[in-house]
Amino acid sequence: MKRYLSVISLDDALALLDREFSKKPSVIQVPLENANGRITAEAIFAKYSVPEIHVSAMDGIAVVSAETNAASEQHPVTLPRAARVNTGNVVPPEYDAVIMIEDVWEKDGTYTIRKAAAPWQHVRPAGEDLAESEMVIPSCHRIRSHELGGLATYGITEVNTMTVRIGLVPTGSELVAHGTRPKPGQVVESNTVMAKAMLEEAGATCTRYPFVEDVPEKIRDAISMAVKENDIVVVSAGSSAGTKDYTESVIAGLGEVLVHGVAIRPGKPVIIGRIEKKPVIGLPGYPLSALTVLREIVLPCLKYYGLPVPQPAIVPAQITTAIAKEVGSDEFVLCSLGKIGGRWVLSPQSKGAGVQMAGIRANAYIKVPKTSEGFDAGSVVDARLMVPERESEQALLITGSHDPAIDYLCDLIRPVGVSLLSTHVGSMGGILALKKDQCHAAPTHLLADDGSYNTAYVKRYLPETVVNLVCIAERQQGIVSQDGLALSDLPGRSFINRQKGSGTRMLLDHELKKTGVDPSAIPGYEREVTTHIAVALAVRCGEADAGMCVYSAAKALGLPFVPVANERYELAFRQEHADDPRLVTLIEAIRSTAFKEILSRLGGYDTRETGRIRPGDG
Amino acid sequence: MKRYLSVISLDDALALLDREFSKKPSVIQVPLENANGRITAEAIFAKYSVPEIHVSAMDGIAVVSAETNAASEQHPVTLPRAARVNTGNVVPPEYDAVIMIEDVWEKDGTYTIRKAAAPWQHVRPAGEDLAESEMVIPSCHRIRSHELGGLATYGITEVNTMTVRIGLVPTGSELVAHGTRPKPGQVVESNTVMAKAMLEEAGATCTRYPFVEDVPEKIRDAISMAVKENDIVVVSAGSSAGTKDYTESVIAGLGEVLVHGVAIRPGKPVIIGRIEKKPVIGLPGYPLSALTVLREIVLPCLKYYGLPVPQPAIVPAQITTAIAKEVGSDEFVLCSLGKIGGRWVLSPQSKGAGVQMAGIRANAYIKVPKTSEGFDAGSVVDARLMVPERESEQALLITGSHDPAIDYLCDLIRPVGVSLLSTHVGSMGGILALKKDQCHAAPTHLLADDGSYNTAYVKRYLPETVVNLVCIAERQQGIVSQDGLALSDLPGRSFINRQKGSGTRMLLDHELKKTGVDPSAIPGYEREVTTHIAVALAVRCGEADAGMCVYSAAKALGLPFVPVANERYELAFRQEHADDPRLVTLIEAIRSTAFKEILSRLGGYDTRETGRIRPGDG
Repeated sequence: MKRYLSVISLDDALALLDREFSKKPSVIQVPLENANGRITAEAIFAKYSVPEIHVSAMDGIAVVSAETNAASEQHPVTLPRAARVNTGNVVPPEYDAVIMIEDVWEKDGTYTIRKAAAPWQHVRPAGEDLAESEMVIPSCHRIRSHELGGLATYGITEVNTMTVRIGLVPTGSELVAHGTRPKPGQVVESNTVMAKAMLEEAGATCTRYPFVEDVPEKIRDAISMAVKENDIVVVSAGSSAGTKDYTESVIAGLGEVLVHGVAIRPGKPVIIGRIEKKPVIGLPGYPLSALTVLREIVLPCLKYYGLPVPQPAIVPAQITTAIAKEVGSDEFVLCSLGKIGGRWVLSPQSKGAGVQMAGIRANAYIKVPKTSEGFDAGSVVDARLMVPERESEQALLITGSHDPAIDYLCDLIRPVGVSLLSTHVGSMGGILALKKDQCHAAPTHLLADDGSYNTAYVKRYLPETVVNLVCIAERQQGIVSQDGLALSDLPGRSFINRQKGSGTRMLLDHELKKTGVDPSAIPGYEREVTTHIAVALAVRCGEADAGMCVYSAAKALGLPFVPVANERYELAFRQEHADDPRLVTLIEAIRSTAFKEILSRLGGYDTRETGRIRPGDG
Repeated sequence: MKRYLSVISLDDALALLDREFSKKPSVIQVPLENANGRITAEAIFAKYSVPEIHVSAMDGIAVVSAETNAASEQHPVTLPRAARVNTGNVVPPEYDAVIMIEDVWEKDGTYTIRKAAAPWQHVRPAGEDLAESEMVIPSCHRIRSHELGGLATYGITEVNTMTVRIGLVPTGSELVAHGTRPKPGQVVESNTVMAKAMLEEAGATCTRYPFVEDVPEKIRDAISMAVKENDIVVVSAGSSAGTKDYTESVIAGLGEVLVHGVAIRPGKPVIIGRIEKKPVIGLPGYPLSALTVLREIVLPCLKYYGLPVPQPAIVPAQITTAIAKEVGSDEFVLCSLGKIGGRWVLSPQSKGAGVQMAGIRANAYIKVPKTSEGFDAGSVVDARLMVPERESEQALLITGSHDPAIDYLCDLIRPVGVSLLSTHVGSMGGILALKKDQCHAAPTHLLADDGSYNTAYVKRYLPETVVNLVCIAERQQGIVSQDGLALSDLPGRSFINRQKGSGTRMLLDHELKKTGVDPSAIPGYEREVTTHIAVALAVRCGEADAGMCVYSAAKALGLPFVPVANERYELAFRQEHADDPRLVTLIEAIRSTAFKEILSRLGGYDTRETGRIRPGDG
């Protein structure tokens, strides 16, 4: 059985990349118009002076300053000679000053002034801006958009830019191109799409090669060609220990494998090899593993080639939930980051390396160093930003029960600049986050024994805190199945459940008890997923006969739905944050006509209570 | 005579743009590969679930979990059935768990395990990542590079992005395209080059139209066409009060002029008009005026169309020199910003709107509000960053005497990430900045009566401070002229001088005194420019017969040079900053062989003392 050749630390892997390769960037010439954001490969010098001779700095008249000396408000002077000049016109050699047109009275071709002109006033001397041969921009400078203007002025039409040519080789017989719906067992090739965008943003020039089947000879040919045409080659997938993982043996055949396995999570099965003196990096297949390796290994490698790769901004943030890990690996966790009452709060996201959405939902990430056993909840850690700091300051953290409606609220408020980041931990998880003041608001639908929603739990868990509840909607929960099962039909049918602490699970238990059905009679009662749509999906693909979810989820997947109960889905928030502009924006969105129209389109929502605010103690 | 129609405040101009136009963005579809950094015009939904059915999360074997229950370290179990699966393979319907290949012993096609498998372990349920119909990304979201991967996975091939189509119409018979060396009176068209890059960076889609001569009919036709094809039209130049400024009358003829003149400096002669319900903005011609109007008026206008235009980060910074202005205009000043011993320090740059280099040299700008009369030196003001904050933290502020060698030092240290920002205020200005701890180092060449350089001034102005001097070079100063004039030839010849407080001016005075030449006998002695190369240039273009500068400047412009004196050009820095990594990097660069080679190539530098450090008190 194959094992990893050797696992080395991330620091050692980076040191090896820096040490083992002669890292010379490539130079490509780009037209000035395309140079924004690119890195200069060499200093740029002015081709001529600007201006080349003295020109007028104003619209006005060119004069001989000595002939203006007598002029004053009381004693206007009509000039013996003068020349009308516009801004940028050459000042004729016989003149040595310019008077603004606003200060000139013209009559029958003669000019009268009421103020003397100082020698050389409003005349731009040759080279005022820049003189021929002077340096405009140094090498290794990232060109800013407004600088294109100056470069054009100084005679620059082409810019030699510094880059690193990277060949991206996607391997795997299971790959299909995006746009093709993958059949069972097929995978959309997305890692080189991501890699090209990420690496080019940092200044690299990437070529995506055609997909290569899992045939060692074909992989060898593809890598050989990519090595010839590039400075670095990144081979996507095939770096693990599956039966068809040929990347390592192909690299070994063409050159040598320096590293197989870096102590980094996600991303461990990375390969670093050398062919024709160039680095060949085997990228793990899982998207978040690939993302991590690109960010933590390939981007730093570009720095060794001279590209000024931007570093993420870092803010100190309080982490909401503990992260436990074993000593020995650097671990990277995607997070939702927001500012609650002046302090940064950070919620780690799911760690599954296959959950590509985690990268889309995250606006920050953390590094748990290899020497660390993790972080306790409440620790202050370095959050590395994945968006501009100003944007993360506008993040609204929503923690609790999930409903598709939350995504539509996110869509409604994004245009005014508020980013809604929602963490799905179920209603009870939301109430606990609210208790710790770790979210701006918690969507919740918790049924008490007396039949009331939410207030009993708010009172119990936040007895000292003033909490408000704004109603999102009264929504229908029910049984989703392929064949129209009702709650009483569940015993003996395979079931897919929601996680403990979710309002849906509690509602199910309440209803089962009421109906006298014993959960142990329902096979699959223990199997948990975390969203309504995941329940409906498990039913649609035949993994389970039935589950409980909201109507909109069943409708979205076209499945029969038998109602069980209506429940009050509300958003709980602390009174102290009621004036937070982000929260105000969210509540306005909940109350908007647009939102009610969305709910009615999704189906299963009663919007008569939507937007109503009540105190959290009922 | 034409006057401005009406001058309104910047706030009023922005309010008018927001109020007077129905601002609907355009939608353009772009292939996913080109979508990085673009703004979504609508929410994006998953086309199918990922994964669509349950697949293996590991390389291993698919098993029936119930058949593994008996397995333990002591009691290995050989499984009656199992299927080899790689990561991503479909788990066949008869199995409900996966065991990692590392935990499996294979022999003759049978598998033995030593640990029970929990139901559904290492199985990715359908929709684990995302379920069909779920929202991937909301509208109005700026797509990040790594998100392209997820979007590919979820079946997205084209993205509807939000944009604003902007037509850029360059007008002016004096215009030539960049790459053409402008003849006297001609100007390289650079404002629409800059505008396109700046506005597209913010999400707009710009079309640059061909240059239009100063003929009203031609301008009218060009604007008409641009209005038809775009959401906003920006007309470059012709908005002032020159004899050929037709923009206003053309707009008035095609529609209406709402504003002519906004109380903003630079940038006052801006026009806001309306043609076919669309905004037509007349951009002033001076590059820094155009930059300011683009940033302060056109970019905010894009926000009104729904584009999430990024805002600059702001840091509080101490301003080194006073800024005086009249009440009534918002004034924007380009600055050099750096961190000195933990506090941000900000040096305003020259305010000439024609000095395009100011935009290239600046890494920050400030707004002096219309109600303000300016800022006192030492005030703490909001510095708006034009580079990432991390980059401005790496800025090295050099204030004092300028020499072309400083630009080459900038080029040498940029690759290690240090940005040298140099402010040219002459040697005395540098000593005073050093005294106030407002720069990291001051290049200086100040001759004392005893013939010593720099130490006397350091002792006099910084008596209490430990200062070091590192020698850049001993350099040759002399008389530059068209016909080989010497110092004694100056009386009666027209001269171009350096500014008071510059070491060159002081050296000149010292030498004139020694030679017994009276400055008043030298016409032009009062006329000042601020760099060596500007002196040489004034001589080359015939504005003056002679000036004093370093040899390298005369050589760069191919002019005769008659040596007057050698002087010690040194960099003074406070001992307390000696360990600052930026300063250490600079001193290393001064001491490098590469730098000495550059000096020898430039000519006129004696490098035997280069890199030598001595105490500032001699």
